[in-house]
Amino acid sequence: AGEELERRCQSFMAPPVTNMQELRDNPGDMKTHMELLILETQAEVCRALAAADGGATFTVDKWNRAEGGGGVSCVLQDSNVFEKAGVNVSVVHGYLPQESILQMKTRGKNLKTKDGKLPFCAMGVSSVIHPKNPHIPTIHFNYRYFEIEEADGNKQWWFGGGTDLTPTYLNEHDVVHFHQTLKDACDKHGPRYYPQFKKWCDDYFLIKHRGERRGVGGIFFDDLDSQPKEEIFNFVESCAKAVVPCYIPIVEKHKNDPYSPEDKLWQQLRRGRYVEFNLVYDRGTKFGLATPGSRIESILMSLPLTARWEYMHSPSPGSKEAEILNVLREPRDWVQ
Amino acid sequence: AGEELERRCQSFMAPPVTNMQELRDNPGDMKTHMELLILETQAEVCRALAAADGGATFTVDKWNRAEGGGGVSCVLQDSNVFEKAGVNVSVVHGYLPQESILQMKTRGKNLKTKDGKLPFCAMGVSSVIHPKNPHIPTIHFNYRYFEIEEADGNKQWWFGGGTDLTPTYLNEHDVVHFHQTLKDACDKHGPRYYPQFKKWCDDYFLIKHRGERRGVGGIFFDDLDSQPKEEIFNFVESCAKAVVPCYIPIVEKHKNDPYSPEDKLWQQLRRGRYVEFNLVYDRGTKFGLATPGSRIESILMSLPLTARWEYMHSPSPGSKEAEILNVLREPRDWVQ
Repeated sequence: AGEELERRCQSFMAPPVTNMQELRDNPGDMKTHMELLILETQAEVCRALAAADGGATFTVDKWNRAEGGGGVSCVLQDSNVFEKAGVNVSVVHGYLPQESILQMKTRGKNLKTKDGKLPFCAMGVSSVIHPKNPHIPTIHFNYRYFEIEEADGNKQWWFGGGTDLTPTYLNEHDVVHFHQTLKDACDKHGPRYYPQFKKWCDDYFLIKHRGERRGVGGIFFDDLDSQPKEEIFNFVESCAKAVVPCYIPIVEKHKNDPYSPEDKLWQQLRRGRYVEFNLVYDRGTKFGLATPGSRIESILMSLPLTARWEYMHSPSPGSKEAEILNVLREPRDWVQ
Repeated sequence: AGEELERRCQSFMAPPVTNMQELRDNPGDMKTHMELLILETQAEVCRALAAADGGATFTVDKWNRAEGGGGVSCVLQDSNVFEKAGVNVSVVHGYLPQESILQMKTRGKNLKTKDGKLPFCAMGVSSVIHPKNPHIPTIHFNYRYFEIEEADGNKQWWFGGGTDLTPTYLNEHDVVHFHQTLKDACDKHGPRYYPQFKKWCDDYFLIKHRGERRGVGGIFFDDLDSQPKEEIFNFVESCAKAVVPCYIPIVEKHKNDPYSPEDKLWQQLRRGRYVEFNLVYDRGTKFGLATPGSRIESILMSLPLTARWEYMHSPSPGSKEAEILNVLREPRDWVQ
């Protein structure tokens, strides 16, 4: 088992955050399983992106958090195909900030604190890929595991995650491929996951003040805790393994597509909306910005290299810009 | 008095939001005074900017809010000198959104609601000017007046506002001129305004997750209600009149300065920080985004035309980029 662990770690972008001895000593702990899964996912995605880019090399930063834990941030900036591609792993522990406790309470979590303190461990892989070509959509995915120890020693845990696509223009074939791949991964674990998490995704990525979704959706879930841990882990693992097959074929298909300055302009305006969602609404970004000692550069890696805001920009009816806007305003079902 | 009102309105960018008869009928009401002041300020600033630009014409949009009130938005986009210059007046009334009531309570306001409802009237002039040339700083100003009618008929009112500067590079002479002009305006009304509001400005415009201020400050105040209304109005008027003299000379001085692609790049990264502050922390933006029926395009007019986020960008020690960062991290006193 120790050898098997060594072998798996060989493929990672950097050594695990938790020290090897601790991982070896707790082979059955969900924290161990999850840390290995997120590091493996990071490595698989980075390798696939680097290959699609034509041999780019990710910058790898391994960092420590003074308050406990650390992470591995992998970034590709201004490469052949990508404007900015970030794949980040973090494994942090310590005490939950008050703001996050309150935020979790609004989600219905009843947490018994001790002197207002709540020890936690949070780990996840999180990624946003912004390509240069407006015909390749942006993808975001995040898979995470949370443990909290309450004042009475009771441990609460849950999984969260999702994968979603943000195209500049609508290509129905791409969107169907993307959703079908996610649905196939979900369906292995039961028929209700995909429809439920597809809807959750459409609801979550709403830019409320615009009445638009950030993109064409995918899947999103949070607070999964009502089945055995191992079962949920297996589901999360299937979703994580679906990232490369749902996205890389779309990158390959469009990476040499020609595009006009007008296409690029519309992409930049959509990037602006991406920034609006992430800074105003995104729960992960808010949690990160509120967590003391969090690594800001890794959290804000999700922001595009460049973005644009024009006053009163409005696409003409019937244009391909209006076409995607319609989908963002009224989400569709892409697969049955 | 009716003729005097007509005469003042001639100079505005658009007719007042409130109908003329109502303004004529209530010449002594603070709401009338304030609406005229904010429209006058808008016109003065737009004219000065258009002149500095070399004869540009502002786009003027007069809009109505279904829930009550409306506004006048003046925007100049991609002109000779300015990337984006927006000067917005809004006069809105209706019921305060629950989120805003809670937010005001955290600021210590004790508001007696009736069935959870609170009628309010809010008006102000708000502006952000983003120039093209990295040697001209961005300016923001906002002067506003608030009235709330509590369940028992009691009226609460207060003034808020401020003017602050965000340079890409430090030019001490400009910053001293800017602060001195604001200080002179404040000092006419008492010696304590400037030092108090200068500090409030440094505190308010903190981008907490970066440990940096948005700019080199200026003045900021909110919830001013502890002196007679007319006295505070006179103070606010002096501040509003100081906008043109504190800024336009800086625009004129630098509008033909040469700059390099590196200067422009650094400006774009600073624009990214501007977006971070406005979307994550700014109270006015949050209030606007949470207010039903608010005009999103006018609220987000404050965002730059273009912005940039680079992973792990860090200026080299001793560079002019590092010089301004130092000031943003540790605010200085500019005038005695």
